[in-house]
Amino acid sequence: MKYDVVGLGVSTIDLLMVVDELPGGELVQKAHATAVAGGGPVATALVALARLGGKGAMLDRLGDDLFGRMILEEFGREGVDTSGIAIAQGKSSSQASILVRRRDGARAITFAPGDSGELDAADLAVDAIRAARILHLNGRHWDASLRAARVAREAGVRISFDGGSHRFQPAHRELMPLVDICIVAHDYATAFTGAADPGKAALALVEAGPGVVAVTCGTDGSHVAARGGEQFHQIAFPVEHVVDTTGAGDAYHGAFLFALIRGYSLRDSARMASAVGALNTRALGGRAALPTFAELESYLLERS
Amino acid sequence: MKYDVVGLGVSTIDLLMVVDELPGGELVQKAHATAVAGGGPVATALVALARLGGKGAMLDRLGDDLFGRMILEEFGREGVDTSGIAIAQGKSSSQASILVRRRDGARAITFAPGDSGELDAADLAVDAIRAARILHLNGRHWDASLRAARVAREAGVRISFDGGSHRFQPAHRELMPLVDICIVAHDYATAFTGAADPGKAALALVEAGPGVVAVTCGTDGSHVAARGGEQFHQIAFPVEHVVDTTGAGDAYHGAFLFALIRGYSLRDSARMASAVGALNTRALGGRAALPTFAELESYLLERS
Repeated sequence: MKYDVVGLGVSTIDLLMVVDELPGGELVQKAHATAVAGGGPVATALVALARLGGKGAMLDRLGDDLFGRMILEEFGREGVDTSGIAIAQGKSSSQASILVRRRDGARAITFAPGDSGELDAADLAVDAIRAARILHLNGRHWDASLRAARVAREAGVRISFDGGSHRFQPAHRELMPLVDICIVAHDYATAFTGAADPGKAALALVEAGPGVVAVTCGTDGSHVAARGGEQFHQIAFPVEHVVDTTGAGDAYHGAFLFALIRGYSLRDSARMASAVGALNTRALGGRAALPTFAELESYLLERS
Repeated sequence: MKYDVVGLGVSTIDLLMVVDELPGGELVQKAHATAVAGGGPVATALVALARLGGKGAMLDRLGDDLFGRMILEEFGREGVDTSGIAIAQGKSSSQASILVRRRDGARAITFAPGDSGELDAADLAVDAIRAARILHLNGRHWDASLRAARVAREAGVRISFDGGSHRFQPAHRELMPLVDICIVAHDYATAFTGAADPGKAALALVEAGPGVVAVTCGTDGSHVAARGGEQFHQIAFPVEHVVDTTGAGDAYHGAFLFALIRGYSLRDSARMASAVGALNTRALGGRAALPTFAELESYLLERS
């Protein structure tokens, strides 16, 4: 296959600053550290995959502004294919300002979606989807997502869904029966299934369609369930000094898909995903600390 | 003369977002509007001057990073000379994240000074200073500022000082006897002189050296005093819908210097400065709404 994963979502530029105070009122303060980094859940999952050695392609619609150019440049540096990204002339791309409080890592995120708009379902790079092992969605560009899922289904391409970054929306019920791999945050799983317990929510999601489900619970790890009855809990690897949790969940997704594609067991895939998520919290920004495959291997070896 | 004003200070890139809440804790919110704009008190004063038709040159030290390139590009577009800006290889430029609360314009500013460091006094473009009518300082790059002031003094170039953007520092007492035009915020004037009343503080500052002093009080206007006894209050022009006050003080400086150079009276200069400061609050970002000379003239004509 040409691609391991084709992702459809919204790419952003994140401007991160580590601060003493999340400013509740008028305030002038000095940042302890800053970073400019690409973001967006699907986009960062693809970069995590690429860092590990996988081949990804992003489908999105950007403005032709500074931030749009920065997004394309970063994908280029990371080896993520951008030929399926549409450019909206005279429009702005998505950006976010993220203030990270130093003492506890609490984050205040202000996002500006830009006005480049939805990717038209008619503009979807269907050939890229057909040339992928997995299509990764998170519900953005909704009409295009539904078409992409149908194209993938017809071509025998597995479909992965990230429900972690968005609040649950009833429309997602239309997509879930098409999903093969569903990795969602605890809140999302509870909203979808009605089950407060993450393990039970994972099982209930398997009933809704996906053959593989992971429900992520931050530092409480993740609950994985699969059709056929396999079910287990994966711990979150403890991190001595968390700098920034931005992108940790997205990294988990990218690594999970990479591992499944490379034929690792479900348990090994969850362990690798958890490790990549933990490693990614070591530096400011959603992507700076994403490991290579060699770094991941040596990290896991030390902990086996 | 080659330049109307040569300015020595720190240039930044401001990333502005209009928000509902200044986030006192963990929060995800959508911005109503965003802007990326050059900033820095001296830098914006030079752009205000250039927009009115004056010729300015900036002296500074930038990193060779994305923000440094953006700063240079914007000066280029505005016609501000950058030949006296030193570039520090591998270093970062100054940036600021500014959240503007929509309901009242309150601002939370987080600034990151970068690591490009102080402009070395030995690297000062002394020829540019000698070719200027006015040298504009705000106390940044302190050693270079003292040298610049001495060079200006010897060459008969007038010296302007902006104390509005910084807290008063005792070292500034060394500079003040060299200053000809001193425009400072009320807080600064009180800290320097001990006089709480802005009119009295203006008179006390004249005693400290400058021939022209303005003490700015935001929407309460400004108190102007000059050696020889002239003293008056300039109102702040009312603005029906203030979008963002970022850069209003800097714009006041640039316009005041422009007017003095063009031979306007002190009263006319203060009136023009006040108008440019008010006009500059009409748009998000420190420079977007700076008027041309024609716009300023028609604005004042409507109010005369």
